[in-house]
Amino acid sequence: MTEKRKPSFSCDYMEGALPQILNRLLETNMMQSSGYGTDDITESAKEKIRTACGTPEADVFFLVGGTQTNATVIDALLHSYEGVVSAETGHVAVHEAGAIELGRHKVLPLPHTDGKLSSKTVEDYLKAFAADGNHDHMVQPGMVYISQPTEYGTLYTLAELEELSAVCRRYSLPLYVDGARLAYALGCKDNDVTLADLGRLCDVFYIGGTKCGALFGEAVVIPKHNYIPHFFTIIKQHGALLAKGRIAGIQFDELFTDDLYLKAGMHGMAAAEKINTALRENGYETAFGSPTNQIFVVLDDAEKSRITSEIDLGFWENLPDGRTIMRIATSWATTKENVDRLIEVLENH
Amino acid sequence: MTEKRKPSFSCDYMEGALPQILNRLLETNMMQSSGYGTDDITESAKEKIRTACGTPEADVFFLVGGTQTNATVIDALLHSYEGVVSAETGHVAVHEAGAIELGRHKVLPLPHTDGKLSSKTVEDYLKAFAADGNHDHMVQPGMVYISQPTEYGTLYTLAELEELSAVCRRYSLPLYVDGARLAYALGCKDNDVTLADLGRLCDVFYIGGTKCGALFGEAVVIPKHNYIPHFFTIIKQHGALLAKGRIAGIQFDELFTDDLYLKAGMHGMAAAEKINTALRENGYETAFGSPTNQIFVVLDDAEKSRITSEIDLGFWENLPDGRTIMRIATSWATTKENVDRLIEVLENH
Amino acid sequence: MTEKRKPSFSCDYMEGALPQILNRLLETNMMQSSGYGTDDITESAKEKIRTACGTPEADVFFLVGGTQTNATVIDALLHSYEGVVSAETGHVAVHEAGAIELGRHKVLPLPHTDGKLSSKTVEDYLKAFAADGNHDHMVQPGMVYISQPTEYGTLYTLAELEELSAVCRRYSLPLYVDGARLAYALGCKDNDVTLADLGRLCDVFYIGGTKCGALFGEAVVIPKHNYIPHFFTIIKQHGALLAKGRIAGIQFDELFTDDLYLKAGMHGMAAAEKINTALRENGYETAFGSPTNQIFVVLDDAEKSRITSEIDLGFWENLPDGRTIMRIATSWATTKENVDRLIEVLENH
Amino acid sequence: MTEKRKPSFSCDYMEGALPQILNRLLETNMMQSSGYGTDDITESAKEKIRTACGTPEADVFFLVGGTQTNATVIDALLHSYEGVVSAETGHVAVHEAGAIELGRHKVLPLPHTDGKLSSKTVEDYLKAFAADGNHDHMVQPGMVYISQPTEYGTLYTLAELEELSAVCRRYSLPLYVDGARLAYALGCKDNDVTLADLGRLCDVFYIGGTKCGALFGEAVVIPKHNYIPHFFTIIKQHGALLAKGRIAGIQFDELFTDDLYLKAGMHGMAAAEKINTALRENGYETAFGSPTNQIFVVLDDAEKSRITSEIDLGFWENLPDGRTIMRIATSWATTKENVDRLIEVLENH
Repeated sequence: MTEKRKPSFSCDYMEGALPQILNRLLETNMMQSSGYGTDDITESAKEKIRTACGTPEADVFFLVGGTQTNATVIDALLHSYEGVVSAETGHVAVHEAGAIELGRHKVLPLPHTDGKLSSKTVEDYLKAFAADGNHDHMVQPGMVYISQPTEYGTLYTLAELEELSAVCRRYSLPLYVDGARLAYALGCKDNDVTLADLGRLCDVFYIGGTKCGALFGEAVVIPKHNYIPHFFTIIKQHGALLAKGRIAGIQFDELFTDDLYLKAGMHGMAAAEKINTALRENGYETAFGSPTNQIFVVLDDAEKSRITSEIDLGFWENLPDGRTIMRIATSWATTKENVDRLIEVLENH
Repeated sequence: MTEKRKPSFSCDYMEGALPQILNRLLETNMMQSSGYGTDDITESAKEKIRTACGTPEADVFFLVGGTQTNATVIDALLHSYEGVVSAETGHVAVHEAGAIELGRHKVLPLPHTDGKLSSKTVEDYLKAFAADGNHDHMVQPGMVYISQPTEYGTLYTLAELEELSAVCRRYSLPLYVDGARLAYALGCKDNDVTLADLGRLCDVFYIGGTKCGALFGEAVVIPKHNYIPHFFTIIKQHGALLAKGRIAGIQFDELFTDDLYLKAGMHGMAAAEKINTALRENGYETAFGSPTNQIFVVLDDAEKSRITSEIDLGFWENLPDGRTIMRIATSWATTKENVDRLIEVLENH
Repeated sequence: MTEKRKPSFSCDYMEGALPQILNRLLETNMMQSSGYGTDDITESAKEKIRTACGTPEADVFFLVGGTQTNATVIDALLHSYEGVVSAETGHVAVHEAGAIELGRHKVLPLPHTDGKLSSKTVEDYLKAFAADGNHDHMVQPGMVYISQPTEYGTLYTLAELEELSAVCRRYSLPLYVDGARLAYALGCKDNDVTLADLGRLCDVFYIGGTKCGALFGEAVVIPKHNYIPHFFTIIKQHGALLAKGRIAGIQFDELFTDDLYLKAGMHGMAAAEKINTALRENGYETAFGSPTNQIFVVLDDAEKSRITSEIDLGFWENLPDGRTIMRIATSWATTKENVDRLIEVLENH
Repeated sequence: MTEKRKPSFSCDYMEGALPQILNRLLETNMMQSSGYGTDDITESAKEKIRTACGTPEADVFFLVGGTQTNATVIDALLHSYEGVVSAETGHVAVHEAGAIELGRHKVLPLPHTDGKLSSKTVEDYLKAFAADGNHDHMVQPGMVYISQPTEYGTLYTLAELEELSAVCRRYSLPLYVDGARLAYALGCKDNDVTLADLGRLCDVFYIGGTKCGALFGEAVVIPKHNYIPHFFTIIKQHGALLAKGRIAGIQFDELFTDDLYLKAGMHGMAAAEKINTALRENGYETAFGSPTNQIFVVLDDAEKSRITSEIDLGFWENLPDGRTIMRIATSWATTKENVDRLIEVLENH
């Protein structure tokens, strides 16, 4: 059974997985291995990730999805009376149905610029919090959460990340980076933040698999060994431990073989660049200045109807002037046919 | 890379998935579909499960693993001051690292017989709780949890399940059945409880995929539509919502095509029966009288060393007399070669 | 031992309790009564409150403090995935150290005007939430929280409260009113909202004792009987149940005898009015237009130093222009001597 | 209004407070002081407790009630995946309506002897937990809870407490002592455990006020300064922070003046001893061998009816043989008249 539908750019989790991953699953299928991520392939995947991140001592864990990973990491890092500082547009602040609060933590939202949190915004907040009288009756900032790329597809520069990391270290707050779409940052020409930079500047980050070529899975990297004691049990308690841990391990072992993860990101970015060029050349307006695999195009009703009758896009936001922001997401799986068809539709106005 | 190891019967989640599942993943891989389980294949899987369970109105949801499923369902069913009644040996009582307590609920443990909770034990407890003065200062029983098969591999008979269900309904308590290994109950000759019986007698149950032929996944069946309002959001909040929901949907769509789920269980049971026969004929002692895919063999140190030097078994429990209970688990993936080799080793004493 | 200090207007919980309350505690001291609020005096207090609120069927419970009451009521009213709508300045949003999040609930902050939430703001938010696509991944609004008077000392008019209540009922959301300082609303000339109005327009509210003449204690009123099932056990579970429940009952029985609660509020308001007059006549600037027992005066550094060298005021907020908002709080306990002294200092500039 | 009723020995929280406490409340009533326990009297009370416990560096906090104190301390000491080891009869295990689980912690119940947990029982459990294979999937023991006196009125000897403390330190587990009725231990002739012993052997303990002469209040003593960082905020978050903190401070300042706390305990114990003598001389059977202020008498139906028609006793437990265990509780408030009347009734059989 297959589904017939219009080409879709509505999100970056519409297909299965990179063929290398499926092949490896097939090849290893009847091999017996121990559970819960204690098998040799999972260990191999961890080691490849440690190497890629320049963090030879790192603890690496494979979880299933992004919200789960955020909720588990944040709950592990915070005391009950501490909150997580986030851009007010952050995924943890808006789109996790209260998963952070389920762990008893407040999200402390700060103003953003195109989805990004500036080191100045964070420092001003922390300075005011420390200075401004007694805060024993308030939720205390316990860590800082950002995503790379952000919800709006924008990227922190290396300089920005270094400044933010410096602020966090000055205030002894863990810095955690949500890398749900990290492949598209790494595959973006404008990007200057490497995995090794994340390994050096963050206390915890995760390398997203679900949106970057895997069936599912997120690799949590904790550069400093035992920075979160008993994290295995914490994962189990949060319902995030896979019995057949190797299914995640196999996927990441492939993703970190022959730069597959980076190549997956570059594939998505090549498609995005072609579409961006077409948008620019045809006079479309875009929002947020996103350089990665999510493109936000501003359409009036007529344009929206015309385009979406041919191509599925993702609804993002209604603007006060009546226009709509629609999301065009590319990915590791975006086909040349679909890109060509989209550009054809875009040109035809 | 492959791992070299002794044949292993240590658990039932050592291999990948049934070939039909991998083939279907391959076949559908580049198809585009919407996320979070809203795709057509997932809907098809739900419909097949509704049919198999005789519950045309049922809500069906696909989660990732057993502990996650138990924690999410139990938290959805209970008020904060209510606990879940369980055999003291129940998975939720012992082996979930506090996942139920993370949801703020006490497990109310009752005595068991070979892992089973009798309707009399439950009724006596409920009767005493209701009668014995004021219980406003105690955790109140809010639901009953059992597993089929149990942690000890034993089975509830249809008569037992009907009685337990009747007690629960008399006291207005939801009855929830954990079916992590349900295929091996369904595939067992001694079993007289069908999926339709579960659909009729339970308020919620889950059909286990992880241990029964899937890469991962558990199908929660709620026979009465909207019995748990907003369960989708509850799943999301518990970090249990798959972005690529179809990966679970595809697996269950295959498992419920041509009785694959039942056949997987029967395959595991055929192996278990051969092993049980060999154990009996060679004078080994077994525990708990388990009729399903988990066999608990009691070994002295010499026997244990001899056997486990050839075959991996699972450690279960040290007995006071110095002997050890070891678990022999078969599954959908157990090979004839491994069974023959195990029997050879068992005979060789 | 007694403390020597400057007259203080820094808050409204600096003294013990109304003499009638202490006398009643003395008079009943060696009387034996049953625990947990099941005694006759507590029942009498409940009945007086039911009468005062025009809610003959109401459930009434006595808790200890405001944060505890808010956390317990909100946790009792919401599902885990629901949040509480509040002005961004609301006590639950800012000053409860994460007590609401401890109950796993997000505070959903909305813009305010002088601490008040308008019915239009709430309705626009609810309308947008319902209309604007899919919100299954977001925390859902589950109730509305306001305080009377607000954190800024302002009052909802009856018309405003009726509109807000109508919106809440249209969207089936409970309306909860925090009355920590309710006596000062009731005792304020500008107020047109009675206890009976609260009983008619709210789903739950509490009548504050701690700041209104009691040693401690807040009376939760739930107009509709059994609106929150098992609330007694919920109180116990939240650590909010007094063993000697009568100590709270006695206090409220006195407060609701001969209009003592209202008179306590009027006493505090008479002092506030004299101070407000002095502020106005001497050209001081005040903020928020608070008509109740909290007066917010804007002082430059010289004025602040001069006044606070003689009289303790409460720090409220640093303004961008370098000035400071200081709080002058009156109460049931404010003495003529202290008011005269304050006015003398205010005039002396 | 006063209540007319039979003399009652049903519990130890039926009266108000020691006259010295009420007098001090009266005397200090109109004094102004700062909130949240930052006043001078509260500081004086803390210092007296530090001296009494021989713990000059101790952090001392005043909370309101026992369940609240247990829930707050336990939640502060444990990680989410850790449980609290308790006798299966412990208050936290049975009578707190899930307050410990509300903090996400499992109570790990162990067998008891007359309400006591032996060091051997605890050590065997910890040894088995550490030794017996992998426990990453189980709730981990994170602290040990006992009460002095226990729920059954029994006492740990100094030798027993020292052994238990030694086990806890060997396994790096905090030892926490619930002293809800500590005055009756201190006032008991058989007792050899002093406050200084608790200060030396425990990591946290609380000195109960509610049942020992105060209107309410429990003093948490943490011998090692800053052993629980940010405990003030944790108390606030748990709704356990009194705005008028001095009301608790005043009570404990009195209780620790001129040995009032000890004398209150001795008063209750003198009454208990007279009653115990009468029970013995008149051939009544008692249970648990309680040496403190709770006496458990075993009565058949006829005796129970006869006595309780004259005197209120507390129901404790129905025995399988049809008899009933009834509790006779004395306290700081027990009058000679009531003791004489009870003895008269007891003799009259």
